[in-house]
Amino acid sequence: MKRIKPVLIILILLSLLAFSFPSRCSFAVNSTKKNVIFMIMDGTNSDIVTLSRWYKGAGLNLDKILVGGVRTYSGESAITDSAAAGTAMATGVKTKADHIGMSQAGEPELTVLEAAKQSGYSTGIVSTSPIQHATPAAFTSHVVDRNEFGDIGEQQVYQNLDVILGGGAAWLKPKSKNKVKNDDGMLKTKQISREDGENLLSIIKSSESLYSFTASRDGLSKSRADGKLWGAFAEEDLAYDFDRKALKPDEPTLAEMTEAAIERLSSSTKGFFLMVEGSKVDWAAHKNDPVGMISEVLSFDKAVGEALEFAERDGNTLVVAVTDHGNSGLTLGNVDTDKNYKSQPQDHFVGPLKKAEYTVKGATSLLKDDRSNLKEVLGKYGLDGLNKKEYCVMKEAKDVSDLEDEMVKLMAKRANLGFSTHGHTGEDVFLYGFGPGKPSGLVENVELPRIFARYLGFSLESFSDWYMDGEKFFEEKGYKVLIDKRDRDNPEMVVSGGEDELRFPENKDYYLRNGERVELRSVNVYSGGRFFVHWE
Amino acid sequence: MKRIKPVLIILILLSLLAFSFPSRCSFAVNSTKKNVIFMIMDGTNSDIVTLSRWYKGAGLNLDKILVGGVRTYSGESAITDSAAAGTAMATGVKTKADHIGMSQAGEPELTVLEAAKQSGYSTGIVSTSPIQHATPAAFTSHVVDRNEFGDIGEQQVYQNLDVILGGGAAWLKPKSKNKVKNDDGMLKTKQISREDGENLLSIIKSSESLYSFTASRDGLSKSRADGKLWGAFAEEDLAYDFDRKALKPDEPTLAEMTEAAIERLSSSTKGFFLMVEGSKVDWAAHKNDPVGMISEVLSFDKAVGEALEFAERDGNTLVVAVTDHGNSGLTLGNVDTDKNYKSQPQDHFVGPLKKAEYTVKGATSLLKDDRSNLKEVLGKYGLDGLNKKEYCVMKEAKDVSDLEDEMVKLMAKRANLGFSTHGHTGEDVFLYGFGPGKPSGLVENVELPRIFARYLGFSLESFSDWYMDGEKFFEEKGYKVLIDKRDRDNPEMVVSGGEDELRFPENKDYYLRNGERVELRSVNVYSGGRFFVHWE
Repeated sequence: MKRIKPVLIILILLSLLAFSFPSRCSFAVNSTKKNVIFMIMDGTNSDIVTLSRWYKGAGLNLDKILVGGVRTYSGESAITDSAAAGTAMATGVKTKADHIGMSQAGEPELTVLEAAKQSGYSTGIVSTSPIQHATPAAFTSHVVDRNEFGDIGEQQVYQNLDVILGGGAAWLKPKSKNKVKNDDGMLKTKQISREDGENLLSIIKSSESLYSFTASRDGLSKSRADGKLWGAFAEEDLAYDFDRKALKPDEPTLAEMTEAAIERLSSSTKGFFLMVEGSKVDWAAHKNDPVGMISEVLSFDKAVGEALEFAERDGNTLVVAVTDHGNSGLTLGNVDTDKNYKSQPQDHFVGPLKKAEYTVKGATSLLKDDRSNLKEVLGKYGLDGLNKKEYCVMKEAKDVSDLEDEMVKLMAKRANLGFSTHGHTGEDVFLYGFGPGKPSGLVENVELPRIFARYLGFSLESFSDWYMDGEKFFEEKGYKVLIDKRDRDNPEMVVSGGEDELRFPENKDYYLRNGERVELRSVNVYSGGRFFVHWE
Repeated sequence: MKRIKPVLIILILLSLLAFSFPSRCSFAVNSTKKNVIFMIMDGTNSDIVTLSRWYKGAGLNLDKILVGGVRTYSGESAITDSAAAGTAMATGVKTKADHIGMSQAGEPELTVLEAAKQSGYSTGIVSTSPIQHATPAAFTSHVVDRNEFGDIGEQQVYQNLDVILGGGAAWLKPKSKNKVKNDDGMLKTKQISREDGENLLSIIKSSESLYSFTASRDGLSKSRADGKLWGAFAEEDLAYDFDRKALKPDEPTLAEMTEAAIERLSSSTKGFFLMVEGSKVDWAAHKNDPVGMISEVLSFDKAVGEALEFAERDGNTLVVAVTDHGNSGLTLGNVDTDKNYKSQPQDHFVGPLKKAEYTVKGATSLLKDDRSNLKEVLGKYGLDGLNKKEYCVMKEAKDVSDLEDEMVKLMAKRANLGFSTHGHTGEDVFLYGFGPGKPSGLVENVELPRIFARYLGFSLESFSDWYMDGEKFFEEKGYKVLIDKRDRDNPEMVVSGGEDELRFPENKDYYLRNGERVELRSVNVYSGGRFFVHWE
C-alpha cells in the first residue's frame, strides 16, 4: 500500500472542516457590526394573517420566517394590553396594564433600546400610530399611565434616538385649541397636544439637536442619509394604508419609513436597534373592521420585506417579528358557516372584502354632515346591493360610530367572518425570525429583549439597577431632597447640600447644578409618587 | 521554531471535526431503525392550547416542541373538514371535503402509512373516535364519502396494520338493531354497524389474522408485547378524558393506547409509522364546550409526552404533532371583556371551568328522563348558583341537546370565553416537531407526508401510480370486465378472458382466480363509479 502523505491528510481534513461548519458561520465575516430590527404588528391574531394572505393571493414575507410562538399574558392578566406587552418585550419584565417601561411596582426599567444605546448602538423607532402610543412608547419612555402622551413625547425628544418616524406631531407642540377625536378606543376623551406648554418641535428643529426634521413623504425621500432624522407625518396616527393614496398621499408607507430608518441607521459604526410597529391592525381589530385589518397586515408585511431584504444583504442583522397580542377573535368562518364551512372557496371570504376601496374609517370620513352621500360611502366600503332592511339599519344609525359598527357587521356577514369580541384576546401568537441569533420554539414575550441583547453582546440584567429612587439615594448621602411641583406640569427634584443646588427636571436628560446644565446618560422619570434618576 | 509533527496536526483537525459536526449527527449511531409518530389533535385552534395550559397550571409537552405553522385549507375550500385535511396529511394531495384517501377526482392515493408498510415498516393507528372516523380513516382507507364507515372498517381490517387501537367496534360487527346517536355533528342520522353483513370482528379474532384482540383497558395492559394488536374499546367513540374515570373506567386513555402502540411497534426490525389522533377536541369544539376541549387537549398532550419520552430514548424517532384545522373560534376574552380585558387574571377563565367534574356530554349523560336531577347535572358541569332567569332557561330547554347548548353558553359567559362559530375555521395552526428530520417554518399540510417519507427513506411520489382503474387496465389488455353488484353491499370486479375468471371483492386485499384466493399488496377500492386495484 502506498503511504499517503501527512500533508494530504491535513488538506483533506481541512476541506472537511470547511464543509462541516454550520452555514451560520458564513455570517459576520466582513463586519463586526450587528443590527436588530424588531417588528411588531399590534393586535393581530393568526386568522388575520391567513385572511390577508388569501386577500393578497400570494405568500407573505412573514411566511418565509415563521419560527415558533409567543406567550403574551401580562403580569396581572391573561390578556395583555399593548402597554404591558410592549414593556415586556422592551424591558424583559412582565408588568401591569397601562405601564410603559415601568415594572409592576412602578419603577422604571431600562429598555433594550436604551441599553443598546448605552452600549454604543444607534437606535430608532418607526410607527404608524402617534410615536407616543403604547408600543413605541414602551421602548423609549417610562410612565405609569400610557395616556400620558405629553410625558412620553418629552422623554422621547430627550432620548436622543437617531431615527424617529411616525405620527404624533400634536404632542410635540404647546397646547392648542384643536381637539381631535381618536379612534383606537383608548384616547377618545384625551385632549390633544402638550399640557406643559413646551414646544418640543422647536427643540427637535434646533441646530443643537442635530435632527433633520420632515413632515412629508416627499421630505422623507429627500432627507439627508446621514445624521439624525425625525419624521412626524401626522398630528396623530397615519392613515390606514388602503386609505392613504386617496386621503393622505403625503404620508409615507410603513415600508418607506422602515427603508428610510434602515438606510439612516446602517451608517452606524457599531450597528443599530430599530423597533418598527404596524400599529393599526389593532385599531381596526377593535373596530372589527376586516378591511382595515388586512390593510395594515399587508402594509406591515411590506415593511418586513424591506427589513428582510436588508438583512439578507447585510448578513449581520437579526430580524424578529411578532404581534403583541390577539385582538377581536376574527375567524374565517362564523355562525352562518356552522354547517357548510367545508365548501367555502377563498373567494367567499375575500370577494366581498375586495370590493372595498377604503377601510370603514376611510369610507365614513367621506360622509357629508347631512348624510346625503350615504350610499356612496357604503359603496366605498364595498357594500353594494343592500336590501331594504340593511339600508334602513345604515340610515338609522345614530352617529358615525354606530354607522361604522353596522357597516363592519354587514361586511363580516358577507365575507363569512366571525368575531368574538371588540377587545384583545389571550392566545399564544406566531413568532417570526430571520438571521443570526434568531429565536425559535415557544417563548415568553419577556425573553425577546434578552435574545436581542445577547445577540448585540450585552446583558439586559447588567442594566437592571440603572434607575435609582432619587429622594432615597440623595437623602442617604445626606442631602436635602424635595419635589418642586410649583409648575404642576414640569415638576423638578431639587437636591440641596452645602452651597450646591441640583435641579432634575422631569423627562429631561440633564440636571442643573446651580443653574448650569449637566448632561445625564438617561432621562429623569417622575412617576407621580417617586422621582427616578440615573447617577454614576 | 519547533516543527509541529504532521500527526499532531491531524489529531487537532480530527478533534476540531468532532466538535464541528452538528449535534443532529449524534442520532442514528446505534441503530438503522427509523420511526415516525404523527399526532393529530382534531379541530384545535391555538387559543384552546393556551387555555388548556392555564387550566393545567404548568407547561405542556407541546410547548417544548413548537417549530412552526401549517396551512390547512382543502382543495375546494378555505376551511377544510377532517376528511380532506386527513387525506392531505396522509397522501400529500389536497382534495375535496368528505374524500378519504381519494384525490379531488375520486381516485385513490396511496397513503404514507400504506407506503411505509410497502417499504417494510410496521404501521399503526390510535384514536379516541371510532377508528373509521375521518382522520384515522384517511391514513388507512379510500372512500369518497367519509360516512361510509362500513367500507372504511373493512379496508382497515384487510390493511394488515400491526396496531389498531380506538373505538368503532360497532362497525366491525354485522348489522344489529342498536341505533346509537352520535355527537360529533357528523353522524347523527347514521345507522350503526355494518350493512354488508360481514363479521369483521370474527376475522380479526381468527387465528389467521395474528391479531391479539382486546376490548378493555385491563386487556390492553395485559396484552402480549409481540405480534399484532387490535383494541376496540367502545362501540363508537371513547369517553371524554374528564368523564372516563367515572363513566367508562374500563376504557384506556389516549396516552395508554399510545404507549401500548409504541411498545408493540418498536419491536419492528425496520421501524414504524404510527398515527395517533386525539379525536374529540373537535367534537367538543363543535359543541362549544370549553371543558370538553380542555379535557381532550390535556389528554392529547399526555400522549405527546409518551411519544417524546420514547423518541428521546430512541434517538431515531421523528415526532410531529399538529391540529388538522381550527374549530369554534374560541377566545380568551369575549363581548363582556370588550373594555376590561386587560385586568383578567387567569383565574377569571379557568376558575369557573375547574368547577366542572364532567364535560357537558358527560354531565347530561347523568340526566334522568324526568329531569328531576337537573340541578345536580348542572353542578357536575360546574354550574352552581344559577339565578332564577338562568335556571329557567335550563329548565325550559326543549331537549338534551338544547340543554347542553344553554349549559355551554352559561359556562362560556362565566369563564369569559368567546366563540365565533359551531363549525371549523380557516386559520394557520401551530406545527410541533421533535427528532431527526423534523419540519420547521410554515408548511402546507400536504408537505407533511413527504417529510415523513423522506425521513423513512422512500419517496411518496414513487407510489403515486399505485392504483389503476381496473376496468380500463384489464380491458386494454383484452379482458372482459364487469362490476358484479348483485350483492349490493359487496360488489366485485369480475375480469374474464379465456378460461380464467378473476373476481376482485371490494375492500379486500385479495382476488379470486377461478375461486382460488390470491393475495394482493393493497386493498381493492370501489368508488361507486370506478373500481381501483393494484396490479403488478
